[in-house]
Amino acid sequence: MLDEVNLNKKISKKDYNEELDVLKFRLGELQRELRNAKIPFIMVFEGWEASGISLICNKVIRSFDPRGYVMYPIGKPGDLEAIMPFFWRFWEKIPPKSQITIFDRSWYSRIIYENIKNSRQCRKNLNYAEIFERQLLDDGYLILKFFIHISKKEQKKRFKKSETDPCLKYYLENSDWNPKDDYDRYYPYIDDMLSETSTESAPWNIIEADNTEYAVIKTYKTIIKEIEDFLCRQNTSDTFFAHIKNKYRPEKFTLPDAEPENPLSKPEYLNLKDKYGESIRNLQAELYKNKIPLIVLYEGWDAAGKGGSIIRFTEYLNPRGYRIIPVSAPTESELQYNYLWRFYNHLPKPGKIRIFDRSWYGRVLVERVEGLCSDYEWQRAYQEINEFESQILDWGAILIKFWMHIDKNEQLRRFEERQYNPYKQWKITEDDWRNRSKWDEYESAISDMIRITSTELCPWNIVLGNNKYNARIQTLATISHEVSRRLLENQNEN
Amino acid sequence: MLDEVNLNKKISKKDYNEELDVLKFRLGELQRELRNAKIPFIMVFEGWEASGISLICNKVIRSFDPRGYVMYPIGKPGDLEAIMPFFWRFWEKIPPKSQITIFDRSWYSRIIYENIKNSRQCRKNLNYAEIFERQLLDDGYLILKFFIHISKKEQKKRFKKSETDPCLKYYLENSDWNPKDDYDRYYPYIDDMLSETSTESAPWNIIEADNTEYAVIKTYKTIIKEIEDFLCRQNTSDTFFAHIKNKYRPEKFTLPDAEPENPLSKPEYLNLKDKYGESIRNLQAELYKNKIPLIVLYEGWDAAGKGGSIIRFTEYLNPRGYRIIPVSAPTESELQYNYLWRFYNHLPKPGKIRIFDRSWYGRVLVERVEGLCSDYEWQRAYQEINEFESQILDWGAILIKFWMHIDKNEQLRRFEERQYNPYKQWKITEDDWRNRSKWDEYESAISDMIRITSTELCPWNIVLGNNKYNARIQTLATISHEVSRRLLENQNEN
Repeated sequence: MLDEVNLNKKISKKDYNEELDVLKFRLGELQRELRNAKIPFIMVFEGWEASGISLICNKVIRSFDPRGYVMYPIGKPGDLEAIMPFFWRFWEKIPPKSQITIFDRSWYSRIIYENIKNSRQCRKNLNYAEIFERQLLDDGYLILKFFIHISKKEQKKRFKKSETDPCLKYYLENSDWNPKDDYDRYYPYIDDMLSETSTESAPWNIIEADNTEYAVIKTYKTIIKEIEDFLCRQNTSDTFFAHIKNKYRPEKFTLPDAEPENPLSKPEYLNLKDKYGESIRNLQAELYKNKIPLIVLYEGWDAAGKGGSIIRFTEYLNPRGYRIIPVSAPTESELQYNYLWRFYNHLPKPGKIRIFDRSWYGRVLVERVEGLCSDYEWQRAYQEINEFESQILDWGAILIKFWMHIDKNEQLRRFEERQYNPYKQWKITEDDWRNRSKWDEYESAISDMIRITSTELCPWNIVLGNNKYNARIQTLATISHEVSRRLLENQNEN
Repeated sequence: MLDEVNLNKKISKKDYNEELDVLKFRLGELQRELRNAKIPFIMVFEGWEASGISLICNKVIRSFDPRGYVMYPIGKPGDLEAIMPFFWRFWEKIPPKSQITIFDRSWYSRIIYENIKNSRQCRKNLNYAEIFERQLLDDGYLILKFFIHISKKEQKKRFKKSETDPCLKYYLENSDWNPKDDYDRYYPYIDDMLSETSTESAPWNIIEADNTEYAVIKTYKTIIKEIEDFLCRQNTSDTFFAHIKNKYRPEKFTLPDAEPENPLSKPEYLNLKDKYGESIRNLQAELYKNKIPLIVLYEGWDAAGKGGSIIRFTEYLNPRGYRIIPVSAPTESELQYNYLWRFYNHLPKPGKIRIFDRSWYGRVLVERVEGLCSDYEWQRAYQEINEFESQILDWGAILIKFWMHIDKNEQLRRFEERQYNPYKQWKITEDDWRNRSKWDEYESAISDMIRITSTELCPWNIVLGNNKYNARIQTLATISHEVSRRLLENQNEN
């Protein structure tokens, strides 16, 4: 992809100044148009060492209102970033609607730099890059990728010049790209990477940059053209995503009977609860030691016993190591981002436990049934969620998913109990009754969800919830078994 | 403060269970009352190693709706926390209105642990603790502090017992308090600290905890009583803060003439701009090398040239090292916090530059004049801001403050130019005209601000802004001189 390019294209000083003024004004206008259209915009700048990325970025941002963009220089990960999933630090930085994020270097540099000796990991991360960009593109983000390309000769010349400029010299010496063998060492990797990751919706733009003025003008013109095309597509393409919609093929999955066969007596229950509780208490310390993050998520019908099961679980935990994340409708500011963004922000650190009381599955349950998102959004969410979870598992986390299941009569019984018990009245709201009236619609959403997102590595656990004792023991036992199993696997691997 | 306490108070198992149920329900109710009254609530738990802090916290949070609290275990600072101001990590964690933050250990442990060999630094941080708590208390936060107190004998017994419990053993071994000499080594420091920081509005509550059940019940009862008292005070005390109001003593300070004596010609301007620009470019690399954070803030009349001066400054900077923070009215979610919270979040890392286009001074300018905060809020803000800045300077940052000054006629001229120039129309809004109509009120707010917040270490620079060339050169020259001076001081110190 890099080969047949003339890198020394030129532009006269006079043309440069005149063109730049016009382009700056136009790009300022387009920023305001993107803002009005509520479009989030990501720019990625990669390139050779000393190719002038900073200089070009500094010219580009001068046309923007500073209220509308943030620029992130991406270097070595911080101590927290280093122990989280690779894409965590990039998810954290995606722009909300109407805003611009500029990555001065990005996941691409990091993939090559961090994994140059591990081609399997490199391949995996390139695959996640594809997923990351596709999920955002599907969600209406505009993504532009630039590679600032200079010749080896030009790079040598610049290194030499920087010897006499203390400022440039300092920056180069503190780069983590080791400029001395930059070109030869990385060329084949970068060339491959550019070819492989130049997708139709987010192709690489190669900027010939031996002449910096030319590079600035070409970058400007490319950005302007791409924004104009994007805004134009926005207005015309309602059927743009039709092919993806067809991917959603509902079939039927039938939820089991919610009544357990052998209801537990209270003494049996207390006995088992303590048994599994003690096991969980010790497993928490093992998770710490082995630095394994644990995520347990509870979904279920209203009043199915999510809260009660969570209390029985946390009773045995050291509070320094767990946090409960109650998930309700996204706030105004969360709505400005891709819906998975807030869950990336809630991932536990290695060794810690996060308990989700409801979760990202809201997209294919309440948001689907109540029409809070478009068909296109919830239909593609199954794949997005599977990708999200496979990334978490691959990172090394244990993920346990519970569907707390009760039947319609049992729910009514519990609603009424809450309604008439002064200690529990605050727990029941209008929403609960409204959801209940849509039982059948929820049932088909649940059945789709369990069928499509029960992957081999991370199946749903359906908890028979009509009996509270049995339900709680089933969740505790599942957690205890699942964590033990994974710790054992882990030991065998090492 | 710790001496004359009987630590082995007891409670029967039966009383414990009965009382706990009642207390849990009551605390749950009070959480809902605090939420309705929009009160932010901070709990601090300190205590001896093995005193049972976690266990007590885990019991307390069981009465709370998980939507309403976050618990933070405070240990060794992360790599970012370690290089930011000491209180940065705690400011980041304060609760918004209606929410609860629980600190399982806090700034107190960290002050003692990190500064045990440096009593001067210890004293300084205790002083900042006083400021931190006072600013939040003044802002309507409820703060409760607990010290979980066990005897040395009991501690020894627990250490011994933990030898046979792999889970407890693991946690103790991984504590950074070195339990073996905990009691003897830290006793005098902790005792002093408790006495000194037990203020009237946020006293320490000593919980005798040789008997854990007793400790749980006493903690619960204390929390309940304190919340009840607080809610009661809320309803009665309008004149509670009268004594503080009297602290604000306006005097007169007269702004100078905005016309510079010797207006620069264009060639002079371009020449000086490049001279100072080149100096600033090199200084940025020095800031990096020396890991010194730089904050430059621009306040000024509308159309006084803040944006233009910022552009001339950033033109010479490496964009990897600076960020412009445009400050406008706080968002709905920012309004849920103390007003300084968002500025703590915007501090630069060491070596980086943050440029504030408007700043925390909005509190004593637009918020004062437009009545967006109460008199009590803006009147105490002068002191709060001075304390905030002195903390930043003490951390090692360079802080430069510009007041961009133009006169009323010059502003009119510029407004009209914007109004009639199609390229600039988007820059002028109704707000600008409205602010202009309150010129005199703004003038006295500005005069108060400059007088009260021009401290010896961080005075205001008044920029004579009627002439754009002069104004830009004045800001560039000030930045260049000020940064050089501080770098030199720094060299001499090392």
